[in-house]
Amino acid sequence: MKHLTYKDIDYLAIGAAVLGSGGGGDPYLGKLMAQAAIMENGEVPLLEVDDVPDDKLIIPSAMMGAPAVMLEKLPNGQEPEKALRAVASFFEQEVYGIISIEAGGINSCIPVYTAARLGLPLIDCDGMGRAFPEIPMVTFSIGGVEASPMVCCDEKGNKVVIESIDNAWVETLSRTVTVAYGLSSFIGLYVMDGRTLKKFAVRGTISLAMEIGTRILESKQRKVSAVDSILELTGGYRLFEGKVIDVQRELSTGFVRGKAVLEGIDGDRGSTATLEFQNEYLVAFREGMPVAMVPDLITTLDRETGSPITTEHMRYGQRVVIIGMPCAPIWRTEAGLAQVGPRYFKYDIEYVPIEQLAGGNRS
Amino acid sequence: MKHLTYKDIDYLAIGAAVLGSGGGGDPYLGKLMAQAAIMENGEVPLLEVDDVPDDKLIIPSAMMGAPAVMLEKLPNGQEPEKALRAVASFFEQEVYGIISIEAGGINSCIPVYTAARLGLPLIDCDGMGRAFPEIPMVTFSIGGVEASPMVCCDEKGNKVVIESIDNAWVETLSRTVTVAYGLSSFIGLYVMDGRTLKKFAVRGTISLAMEIGTRILESKQRKVSAVDSILELTGGYRLFEGKVIDVQRELSTGFVRGKAVLEGIDGDRGSTATLEFQNEYLVAFREGMPVAMVPDLITTLDRETGSPITTEHMRYGQRVVIIGMPCAPIWRTEAGLAQVGPRYFKYDIEYVPIEQLAGGNRS
Repeated sequence: MKHLTYKDIDYLAIGAAVLGSGGGGDPYLGKLMAQAAIMENGEVPLLEVDDVPDDKLIIPSAMMGAPAVMLEKLPNGQEPEKALRAVASFFEQEVYGIISIEAGGINSCIPVYTAARLGLPLIDCDGMGRAFPEIPMVTFSIGGVEASPMVCCDEKGNKVVIESIDNAWVETLSRTVTVAYGLSSFIGLYVMDGRTLKKFAVRGTISLAMEIGTRILESKQRKVSAVDSILELTGGYRLFEGKVIDVQRELSTGFVRGKAVLEGIDGDRGSTATLEFQNEYLVAFREGMPVAMVPDLITTLDRETGSPITTEHMRYGQRVVIIGMPCAPIWRTEAGLAQVGPRYFKYDIEYVPIEQLAGGNRS
Repeated sequence: MKHLTYKDIDYLAIGAAVLGSGGGGDPYLGKLMAQAAIMENGEVPLLEVDDVPDDKLIIPSAMMGAPAVMLEKLPNGQEPEKALRAVASFFEQEVYGIISIEAGGINSCIPVYTAARLGLPLIDCDGMGRAFPEIPMVTFSIGGVEASPMVCCDEKGNKVVIESIDNAWVETLSRTVTVAYGLSSFIGLYVMDGRTLKKFAVRGTISLAMEIGTRILESKQRKVSAVDSILELTGGYRLFEGKVIDVQRELSTGFVRGKAVLEGIDGDRGSTATLEFQNEYLVAFREGMPVAMVPDLITTLDRETGSPITTEHMRYGQRVVIIGMPCAPIWRTEAGLAQVGPRYFKYDIEYVPIEQLAGGNRS
């Protein structure tokens, strides 16, 4: 059986941030938490999805809100397990394993932390294959899994349990509670059995993130381009290379919304790209034309090191490569696009897969 | 043993609205609900506070938010018992009785509804002796009773359970949830035992409200002034008689805030009065000088009928009498004034009891 080691978390954190599509949080704090928990409680078993018996209980553990806020409003460390135990208490079964709800710097590390603290395995999968901003945006909800009961815990010791009539109400209520907490909250939700997990999980996300992280962190010593190496692994596309010349960012209704403008360099000199985001990048435009859009993954990498730059950390003057990567196939179904396609995010454009949009650009 | 009858609720609803100090909601819907529940489930036993054994469990049942909203967003009727049962489930005891958290049109009737539906007695008391806008503003919190666990249910079927570190956090979280629900919510909270109830309850509120209601509704046939009759019963003062010439009202952070300006008539001709409110009236000014202030009760009555007019129903042209009534003595202690005195509501004035302020005006 594979185990997640202290060192693995270095790779996981940075690789998951690449899949996080600009969101999912700065990996720094999540990494520290996960590594400390492994040091204290031992390595975390990493199971395949097919290792989970059909009737066993699986619970995602996550952070909700603005990850940047957590750096000033530090967790007390009890919240993730408190939220998880509270959700689990609705069911008459032991929890079999923990999963990530999304791929992202924070939300790939928090489940490791929770699993280590509770002595449970992590399952190698997630509910998005990327990060998305809203609670209902998981493959599990396509499968009819209820987000409710959901529990939100804060660092002061408050706990809120939500039992709602649908996943949209879970989003509304948990967002408003998270905002009241000061914009960060630890959550447990989307309890499901192994059978459902096998049908709807995006498989292998943890391993993929670790492999991406390895390619970034070892690119220098392997003397390869980190960016090329990521694109090769993920089937992605190099969309634009440029310098950040403007970032507009606002916190509204519990999200970080805004856009970044980039001025092309090298082969893209003379062109302009714009990235619009709601926690995650939604659409990348080049000269006003979309070159990648949700649900496909859009990520910005440091041009030299290949390190991911989240929407929260994008700054004037950074030189970045914008890459696009195909999303998990389930997101391209009608049900998937209704939930996370460009029209859901109020863009009046038809979804076109990255392979068609950028097919000529594969580097 | 006394029982609350269908007819009693007519008196209770209108009398409690007088004690509601402009807030506590229009009695109409609450009255209909309570009377329907009595018709279906029978009369509700009304116990004295001293009838409750020390170790028995008492739970307040209430509505939170803007009562006017409920007229368009009708309850489904399950919410009050659902909230109550959810709060009760935290304790390993049967619920012995229900109480009102406050005196007010809605919140004196909802507990009757809940008691009737659950087949439980109502206790003749409340936690304010009037209405106040915020969750921690009950005599029980002076006694150290925790508002948490608190449950908020809406008419769509959503339920939120709050376990918080203090009563201020219960207020913050339940207010934000109630706003997300669309500004109305049914709640259960402040679970306590009979021993605590005996120490901190404002006693006799239900009987007092029924007696006030009787005096209003029977004043015509008894050929007495309803207003005089209320003042005599409550030890209150006639503060101003006037015509409403302006009402400013805004919904902000889950409250109805604003002020009303009145132009004097009869003996008050040539003078102006101003009433400022946050759900309830906070301070009454005459020519800019305070003539009554929280925690004393300020109420506006229809000049002819003596019917109470809530802050939500105040309209241009109404001819009203502003009356002031002394609050329950516990509110005049240091702890009471810290919680509900004028300074808490951001008025830079020292509390002066209505007896001193208006002592010369007793009619």
